[in-house]
Amino acid sequence: MTTPAYASENIFAKILRGEIPSHKVYEDDMTVAIMDIMPRADGHTLVIPKNASRNMLDVATEDINAVMATTQKIAQAQMIAFEADGITIQQFNESAGGQVIFHLHMHIIPRKEGVSLRPHTGDMADGDLLAQQAEKLRAVLDKM
Amino acid sequence: MTTPAYASENIFAKILRGEIPSHKVYEDDMTVAIMDIMPRADGHTLVIPKNASRNMLDVATEDINAVMATTQKIAQAQMIAFEADGITIQQFNESAGGQVIFHLHMHIIPRKEGVSLRPHTGDMADGDLLAQQAEKLRAVLDKM
Repeated sequence: MTTPAYASENIFAKILRGEIPSHKVYEDDMTVAIMDIMPRADGHTLVIPKNASRNMLDVATEDINAVMATTQKIAQAQMIAFEADGITIQQFNESAGGQVIFHLHMHIIPRKEGVSLRPHTGDMADGDLLAQQAEKLRAVLDKM
Repeated sequence: MTTPAYASENIFAKILRGEIPSHKVYEDDMTVAIMDIMPRADGHTLVIPKNASRNMLDVATEDINAVMATTQKIAQAQMIAFEADGITIQQFNESAGGQVIFHLHMHIIPRKEGVSLRPHTGDMADGDLLAQQAEKLRAVLDKM
């Protein structure tokens, strides 16, 4: 099995380089967490490693470990910030696996009892709403 | 946020204690990988930590790191063993998040281009087929 090479012109690489904006929720030495702009539920957050990796098939151990540490923080914060009843985590590898942007990212999605995920329509969420949700998450993370 | 306590009578705890059988694919000091008996695609595998944790909300760092190392191995092996085009990874937390068995587990699902996941009907797969698939995965893992 050979994974295609990492391509540095993907959207998350551009966000990491500061070339395009994002609603940033959290940052440490190894990872960044941002709001998903096409959320499948309110508060849907992405965690990405700063180092280049395409997906789980090629990621380095230190990078995935850092991603999971941040993923846990975000999931715990979402439970409080959005009064969630549960969290769905998804990670997609290659197009057939559901991957659209080829820089490793973990989806962390707050869930409410009885509420299905919204379909992935490609519609972008309102920027002000995403900014408010990011602020809510940051406020909880600051106290953790 | 308080996560409910771990309950040791769940199915995965029973499998770890050897009280009920499973189609085991891989085992190391910290983790076990087994075939999902209600697979959403052929080759659907679960990775579970040996230590008790309910889900991502309470798992210890060393346990999730070990789970992700095994998850990567299984994903890489699935690409070869099942000639997969991609891999979908899912992890569910609490009932609202999709969790049914309350011992942390990672779903690793081989995908083919253009083939949707099967719905989660609750139907159990044929035991002989699961045994064959486990054997295929073990054969690839032995060479990795």
